[in-house]
Amino acid sequence: MAPNVLKLACPNRRGIVATVSNMLFEAGFNIREAAQYDDHETGQFFMRVAFDGSGARADLEARLGATEKHFQMTSSLRFDKRPQRVLVLVSRFDHCLADLLYRQYVGEMNMQIAGVVANYPRETFARLDFDGAPFHYLPITKDTKKEQEKRLFEVIDETEADLIVLARYMQVLSDEATERLAGRCINIHHSFLPGFKGARPYHQAHARGVKLIGATAHYVTGELDEGPIIEQDVERVSHGDTPDALVRKGRDIERRVLARAVRYHIDDRVMINGPRTVVFPD
Amino acid sequence: MAPNVLKLACPNRRGIVATVSNMLFEAGFNIREAAQYDDHETGQFFMRVAFDGSGARADLEARLGATEKHFQMTSSLRFDKRPQRVLVLVSRFDHCLADLLYRQYVGEMNMQIAGVVANYPRETFARLDFDGAPFHYLPITKDTKKEQEKRLFEVIDETEADLIVLARYMQVLSDEATERLAGRCINIHHSFLPGFKGARPYHQAHARGVKLIGATAHYVTGELDEGPIIEQDVERVSHGDTPDALVRKGRDIERRVLARAVRYHIDDRVMINGPRTVVFPD
Amino acid sequence: MAPNVLKLACPNRRGIVATVSNMLFEAGFNIREAAQYDDHETGQFFMRVAFDGSGARADLEARLGATEKHFQMTSSLRFDKRPQRVLVLVSRFDHCLADLLYRQYVGEMNMQIAGVVANYPRETFARLDFDGAPFHYLPITKDTKKEQEKRLFEVIDETEADLIVLARYMQVLSDEATERLAGRCINIHHSFLPGFKGARPYHQAHARGVKLIGATAHYVTGELDEGPIIEQDVERVSHGDTPDALVRKGRDIERRVLARAVRYHIDDRVMINGPRTVVFPD
Amino acid sequence: MAPNVLKLACPNRRGIVATVSNMLFEAGFNIREAAQYDDHETGQFFMRVAFDGSGARADLEARLGATEKHFQMTSSLRFDKRPQRVLVLVSRFDHCLADLLYRQYVGEMNMQIAGVVANYPRETFARLDFDGAPFHYLPITKDTKKEQEKRLFEVIDETEADLIVLARYMQVLSDEATERLAGRCINIHHSFLPGFKGARPYHQAHARGVKLIGATAHYVTGELDEGPIIEQDVERVSHGDTPDALVRKGRDIERRVLARAVRYHIDDRVMINGPRTVVFPD
Repeated sequence: MAPNVLKLACPNRRGIVATVSNMLFEAGFNIREAAQYDDHETGQFFMRVAFDGSGARADLEARLGATEKHFQMTSSLRFDKRPQRVLVLVSRFDHCLADLLYRQYVGEMNMQIAGVVANYPRETFARLDFDGAPFHYLPITKDTKKEQEKRLFEVIDETEADLIVLARYMQVLSDEATERLAGRCINIHHSFLPGFKGARPYHQAHARGVKLIGATAHYVTGELDEGPIIEQDVERVSHGDTPDALVRKGRDIERRVLARAVRYHIDDRVMINGPRTVVFPD
Repeated sequence: MAPNVLKLACPNRRGIVATVSNMLFEAGFNIREAAQYDDHETGQFFMRVAFDGSGARADLEARLGATEKHFQMTSSLRFDKRPQRVLVLVSRFDHCLADLLYRQYVGEMNMQIAGVVANYPRETFARLDFDGAPFHYLPITKDTKKEQEKRLFEVIDETEADLIVLARYMQVLSDEATERLAGRCINIHHSFLPGFKGARPYHQAHARGVKLIGATAHYVTGELDEGPIIEQDVERVSHGDTPDALVRKGRDIERRVLARAVRYHIDDRVMINGPRTVVFPD
Repeated sequence: MAPNVLKLACPNRRGIVATVSNMLFEAGFNIREAAQYDDHETGQFFMRVAFDGSGARADLEARLGATEKHFQMTSSLRFDKRPQRVLVLVSRFDHCLADLLYRQYVGEMNMQIAGVVANYPRETFARLDFDGAPFHYLPITKDTKKEQEKRLFEVIDETEADLIVLARYMQVLSDEATERLAGRCINIHHSFLPGFKGARPYHQAHARGVKLIGATAHYVTGELDEGPIIEQDVERVSHGDTPDALVRKGRDIERRVLARAVRYHIDDRVMINGPRTVVFPD
Repeated sequence: MAPNVLKLACPNRRGIVATVSNMLFEAGFNIREAAQYDDHETGQFFMRVAFDGSGARADLEARLGATEKHFQMTSSLRFDKRPQRVLVLVSRFDHCLADLLYRQYVGEMNMQIAGVVANYPRETFARLDFDGAPFHYLPITKDTKKEQEKRLFEVIDETEADLIVLARYMQVLSDEATERLAGRCINIHHSFLPGFKGARPYHQAHARGVKLIGATAHYVTGELDEGPIIEQDVERVSHGDTPDALVRKGRDIERRVLARAVRYHIDDRVMINGPRTVVFPD
């Protein structure tokens, strides 16, 4: 059985690790994996503990409540390792969606794709087997943006989605939406050195003659493409790569960076630390 | 003996490769390596030919003159494979300078460091053996900037430098200077996804929580850090990397990216194509 | 229109490039891309020319015949850029097959999957849409190995396959088979530093504590996993990666290395040079 | 001040983390960084704790003694963060030595190079500034091998070396020597996919046409080049890379892989787990 996970954050002071370790021990649990990070700049302390054992959840929760109070701690406890319910939002390009579907199919991620939302109709993805996940066609125009987003949140509620993945969803969410989805909505976008603003970024990158192209997966915030970064990667390109070739290479980078970020999130390995993240690798 | 190199560029049309190949053949030379790039967007054609053989230089030059006229071609011919004379400019941080000196020492680059210029005194680099290269201390203040640059150009002339390398030279050259050094002055600077403006970039990168840091080597133009890119590379970092750790990792990336760019330039593998480069790899 | 491609190899001597360039020019063609490699050890010269234009194929072929004789040259000419017909052989693991199918679907490779052969029944790949490619179930036992291979060659003939891809096909081909498929059969296998022999290599790699795992795509020869290498890549792993995690990361590397190798082959970018390859990158 | 470090290993059972955390807390210390690894195959548990605070060392040692007994634990305690004394052994090629000297010079490693041993005379390294480290010329012949090694161990004792680095030291140590240096002697060697035995490995790699070359840093054991791996890295090469070019690229990989391994060791981030290592990254 996969272990339970406790994540916590609090101002750093003496005795946190000892207290938390004791708490788990006394509640009848065994620590299988522990990692922590002590942010010297902010004084904030982050800890992730994976544990198993025969203790009672209610007992642990009671102890945790006392610990939280004592250390001014915020925590999250995942006891039931049921697959995380993931809602995937997509526009026209389906390489990230197809990749997530394949990873679900071979069982390498502890997730269930609970639904697919697109502003393109089902035929756009005719070849993809959604493996039973319901499809929601939510077209969008300038006039229906607000309404469409309302409908989107109904789908999020209906599907009981734990995580929303913008898998090349080319629509900007409203501030209200990003606020409601804070910490549980991951976006993937291309990244270049240097960066480019505006349309057709791969064409801009080609015009500028970059030698590396990359992708960034991050939590969505009100600031477009600027939320806490979870994962990044790059690939080498040359002057001979046409814009089309950059787009093709970009697909490969985007799908693997997004998959890693989703995995880290699903395995409770990511904690948000202001404008950045703490990622405890496996 | 290392082969001679001919680089050329012209509007693309039928017969260029055939003409150039014939020209070398008829002049008594043998092509050892040839590479070309056909920029479909601009219609510009680029070619690099390495060749050896017993032909006469004057004869080849005469033929090349005719070919240039015919194809509206610009070309450069390196016949004499003497080491390129390199002038290294540096401020306080000497990791790139030390690395270039080591590469000269083991003989892996076809270059001779013809001089070192710094706005810090020789003691700053006390540990480094310049291997006979003269040192020029050119301090700079807001008031002496113009004068210092004039003195710099005297050194460039005296040393007969083929290539100027800004090896972490923390001074901005004047527009007049960058113009005079167009295509023969290489700079190295850090690069991040996303990019950062202003001071202490590694600290900014840490604050933003990037997962990759990188470096870019480029030709210097009037636009700061924006000239044609020759080479880039990155390294993975994590939330646990302090700004100091980023600076340390940055040193490693900077020195290897700069060394590769200098090598490509010295081996006549780089051609400038407007805002970008064509790099013919070995 | 995609350009035609001429690949050739011959002992190096003066005048090859000039002759070939003239030949194409005089036959009415224009060189779009040319690359060559001069193997100083063996004295063998390799060249790849992509070209277009309004010349006649028959005329070019006649000229090429004369050139071949003159230079003791072997060559291959791709005039008709029809998609290459690819037969994919697979056992139980379908990540490489699924990836090739997706790449065909988005149209990023100039290929048509002409058939899928497996020693597992169609249900094993129930989720995969073969996009019309016929499926051939060729089970194999120790006793039927010879017969199965005979049937395999019938399928190869029926499908008129240009390229055979062993996409994690866990059967060893007979010497006779590898000979018949020389230069048009690509295999993918895991690679480690150091290497491991025998079963369950990812488990061995874990036991040995390697910090990198990789994959190699190569042409199949009589010597198992030892043919000319086309492409390799690696990914970083740690002590914390279980054998299952290595297998998972291995899937990602295998599919991308195989896809690159297939692309290079299909675009006529690979030439075999004894025990190794010359790969002219795009 | 850099924190103290406790490393420990024992059979896994409930309560270890709690006990160790309490022990440090009660002795007056504060945990700054903790990482652990639970080897599910062997049942062995590994932990690294960095801590600071005003407790007394003797008190902590007494408590640690009791804890060790209770859990059948082996541990090592670094209280005094003085620079580690490193003895560098080298033959003719000095790129790793030069790199370590530079890293000491800029102060990025918590080490002091306590001596340099070579089977080549001081002139071989004339250009290198050893920064005060004594040089020991220990030539070796088939007949003097035993004696030379005896002299080597005298140097190790005299210099009070904590760590012995074989920085391209092309001599095989005796079994007796590797046993005496177990866990404190790091070697660097080239690595390829596939691997090669025998002389001139870069030439073999070229002959085989590999597309990646790499290096491995490992603890030295009786089995040549087979000890527990600390760090590995690779770089991409092509058919165009001559054996000399592979050697050149190999130098870059070797120096950075060795430097990382030495850093991990010096910062007490490596623990040996039978034939492999646990590396707790920073």
